[in-house]
Amino acid sequence: MRDFTVEYFRMNEEDAIAYAKTMLDVFNAKAELTCKEIGDGNLNYVFRVIDEKTGQSIIVKQAGPVARISDEFKLSPDRNRIESEILAMQFELAPGFVPKVYKYDPVMNCCVMEDLSDHVIMRTALMQHQKFPLFADHITTFLVNTLLLTSDVVLEHKEKKELVKRFTNPELCEITEDLVYTEPFFDCDRNDMTPATRAFVEEHIWQDEALKLETAKLKFEFMTKAQSLLHGDLHTGSIFIKEDSTKVIDPEFAFYGPAGYDIGNVIANLTFAYVSAQYTIEHNEEREAYLTYLEETIRDVVDLFKEKFNLTFDQQALEAVARYNGFKAFYLDGILQDTSAVTGLELCRRIIGIAHVKDITSIEDEAKRSAAEKVVLNIGKKFILERATMKNGSDYVRTLQECLQLV
Amino acid sequence: MRDFTVEYFRMNEEDAIAYAKTMLDVFNAKAELTCKEIGDGNLNYVFRVIDEKTGQSIIVKQAGPVARISDEFKLSPDRNRIESEILAMQFELAPGFVPKVYKYDPVMNCCVMEDLSDHVIMRTALMQHQKFPLFADHITTFLVNTLLLTSDVVLEHKEKKELVKRFTNPELCEITEDLVYTEPFFDCDRNDMTPATRAFVEEHIWQDEALKLETAKLKFEFMTKAQSLLHGDLHTGSIFIKEDSTKVIDPEFAFYGPAGYDIGNVIANLTFAYVSAQYTIEHNEEREAYLTYLEETIRDVVDLFKEKFNLTFDQQALEAVARYNGFKAFYLDGILQDTSAVTGLELCRRIIGIAHVKDITSIEDEAKRSAAEKVVLNIGKKFILERATMKNGSDYVRTLQECLQLV
Repeated sequence: MRDFTVEYFRMNEEDAIAYAKTMLDVFNAKAELTCKEIGDGNLNYVFRVIDEKTGQSIIVKQAGPVARISDEFKLSPDRNRIESEILAMQFELAPGFVPKVYKYDPVMNCCVMEDLSDHVIMRTALMQHQKFPLFADHITTFLVNTLLLTSDVVLEHKEKKELVKRFTNPELCEITEDLVYTEPFFDCDRNDMTPATRAFVEEHIWQDEALKLETAKLKFEFMTKAQSLLHGDLHTGSIFIKEDSTKVIDPEFAFYGPAGYDIGNVIANLTFAYVSAQYTIEHNEEREAYLTYLEETIRDVVDLFKEKFNLTFDQQALEAVARYNGFKAFYLDGILQDTSAVTGLELCRRIIGIAHVKDITSIEDEAKRSAAEKVVLNIGKKFILERATMKNGSDYVRTLQECLQLV
Repeated sequence: MRDFTVEYFRMNEEDAIAYAKTMLDVFNAKAELTCKEIGDGNLNYVFRVIDEKTGQSIIVKQAGPVARISDEFKLSPDRNRIESEILAMQFELAPGFVPKVYKYDPVMNCCVMEDLSDHVIMRTALMQHQKFPLFADHITTFLVNTLLLTSDVVLEHKEKKELVKRFTNPELCEITEDLVYTEPFFDCDRNDMTPATRAFVEEHIWQDEALKLETAKLKFEFMTKAQSLLHGDLHTGSIFIKEDSTKVIDPEFAFYGPAGYDIGNVIANLTFAYVSAQYTIEHNEEREAYLTYLEETIRDVVDLFKEKFNLTFDQQALEAVARYNGFKAFYLDGILQDTSAVTGLELCRRIIGIAHVKDITSIEDEAKRSAAEKVVLNIGKKFILERATMKNGSDYVRTLQECLQLV
C-alpha cells in the first residue's frame, strides 16, 4: 500500500479502499469495503466506496493532473481545494442542495463527500423523460441563495473581496473563455460538429458580425464582472436529482463572475432536453406532455428566480445604496440579460465546440440530429442578440416554441 | 537606535536618517544626512533624507497604522507593499512617469524611492496658475499604458487574474466606496460642507432620486468591474510636475477597477483648478488665458487619450475577440462613460464629503466659495447623468463653459 501522506499519486479503486480504511474515520473496523470508479466528467476520478455489510457509502473525488477529455488542458489540482471550500460554503448558503463534505486532502488532491447514489444524474433522467416537479423550486432557491448572498448587495465588501481572491480560478476560467466564448464563433480546429450542420454554422454564426460582437462583449463581461460566487458549470450533468431532492455537485469551476452565468446554464441545458424530446419522442401525446413539462420548468426557473430574488433582496440587502429607488430592478434586469445571453452561448457552444451534450448527440439519425442542432442554434442566437427583451419565463417559452416551428 | 529588522514602529526624522545609514546602500559613509518629514497626504509619513554635502536625496515613505485624516480609518500597512509593487510595474509600463523604487521593507512598512524635489505638486502649481503644456501628452501616455496594457485586451488572462488577486485592496477600496460613492449622496454625519452650500446640496443632490440611482449603479461597477490596474487616487496632489516632466506618485489605492476611474479623477481635478481660477484670478485677461489653458488641457486629456488608446489597441491587442468589428469602439465608449461619471462623482464628493481640495477651500470669501462649489456640483451632476453623451474633449469643455455661465 502506498503512503497517502507523502506525495500525490493518481489513485485506482484499490487505493481508494485503502484510503477509506486508513485516512477516514467513517467506516468501522469490520467494514467490507468495495469500490468502483464512476466518474464520467471531464476532469476528475470519482470513486464510490461502499461497506457491503451496512450499505454505508462515500465518494472520494480525486483531481487528475490533466483533463480527461483531452490532455491539452493542463490543470492545477488546486481546483479540488476550490471545490471543497465552495461546497462547504454552498452547504451553508443553500442547505440541502449540495452534498456534505467530510474531508479535503491537499496531498492527494481529493475530496471525500456524501454519496448520492440514491439520486440520478439529471441529464440522464431527462433523456428518459422523467419529470421532477420540485426542480424549479429547488434550483431557484439554490441560485438565489448562492448568487445574491455572495454579492456586494448582501456581503460586507471587504469580506467579498477576500472571497474573490480566494476563488480566483484562472485555469478553469480559461477553459470557459475558450470553449464557451471564443472557439464556437470562428472556424477553430478544435470545434467538432455534425457535418450536416457545418454549412448552417458557417453562414448563420461565423458570418454574423453582429452576433460575434455580442460574444466579444460577453466574454469581457465574463472575465471582468466579479458579481457573485458562481458554480461555474451548472449543467444538468452537475445535478443529482430524485423526486424530492436536488443536489448540485462539481463546483470546481467556481469563481466570482456574472450571476446570470449559472442561471443561463440551467436554462440552456433544460433547452437541450426540450429540443431532444421534440426529436426523439415518437408518441404525440407523450411528446407534447413532456415538452409542456419542460416549458413549465423553464418558465418557473425564470419566474421563481425573480420572485425569490426580489424577496431575498428586500430581506437581506445590507448595502445602503442598493436600497435606492430603482436599483433592485436595474440589478435584476442586468442578471436577466446575462441569463439570456449565457443561455444562448451555452446552446451554441455545445453544438459547435469540442464539448457536446448527450441530449443531442444521442439522436442517432444524422439528418434529424442536424435539424435539432439548427433549432438549438437558432434559439441560441436569439437569446444572445435579443437578451434585452427576455424578461419573464413566458419570453423564454415563446422563443423556444417559435424556434421549434421555424424548421 | 532602535532595530529596524525586528518589528514595525513609526519612524521620526532621526529614525529615518538612521534607517538610510544602516539599511540602504545609497549614501556613502561620509554623507552628512539631514531629514524632514514632508508628508501632506492623509495616510503616510514621508521623509526626505538629503546628503548635505552632495545634495543627493531619497524619499522614505512609511505607512502609519491609521489614516492621518482621521483615526476612524484603520488600514493594513499592506498598502505599502501594494504601492511598491505597483510603482515597479508602472515604471515598466510607463517609463519616465513614475519615481524609481529602491527598496520595499515589509517590516518597517516603508518604501524608499527617488526624490522628486525638483518637481512640484501639481495642485499647488495650478493654484499658482502655472501652465504645463506637456501635461496632457504625458498623462495620457501614462493612462493608456497603465490602463490598457493591464487589461484583458492585452494581458494573458491567467496572468491578469493573478494581478487582480495580488492587488486586491479591500481597505483602501472601502475608503473610496464610502467617501466617493456613498456619503456625499445622503445626509451623512461625516460630510463637511460650506454652510452656504448646504441648502443647494439638500435640494439638488440628496433629493435627486435619478442622480442617486446612478451613483448606486456606479458604486457597484466600482466594486465589481476588474477591467484595468488603476492608480486609484489620481488627483493633482498625486502628481509631481515640472515643465518637462510629469511623475505620478502615491498609487496605494491601486486595484483592478474600471479604467475610467483614473481618467475621471484627472479631469475632475483639472476642473477644480478651472473653477478656482474663475473665482480667484481678478485680472480679466490673465483669468481668460488661464481658463483657456485649462480648457485646452482637459480637451487634450480626453482626445489624446482616445487617440493613443486606439493606436495602442491596434498595435497591442492580443485577445482575438477584441479585434472583432465594433469591439474597440464599444470598449472605448464604456471607458469614456465611466470617465465622465467618475469626473462627476469626484467633483461632488470633494464639495460635500469629508475630503476637500485646496483649489476650492482656499477661496476665502464664503459667498464666492459657495458660488464656486455650486458650479462644481452642477458640473458634477451633468457628468454623472449625461455620461453617455460625453464622447470628446469638446463635450467636456462645453459642459464646463455652460455651467460657469449658469451662476
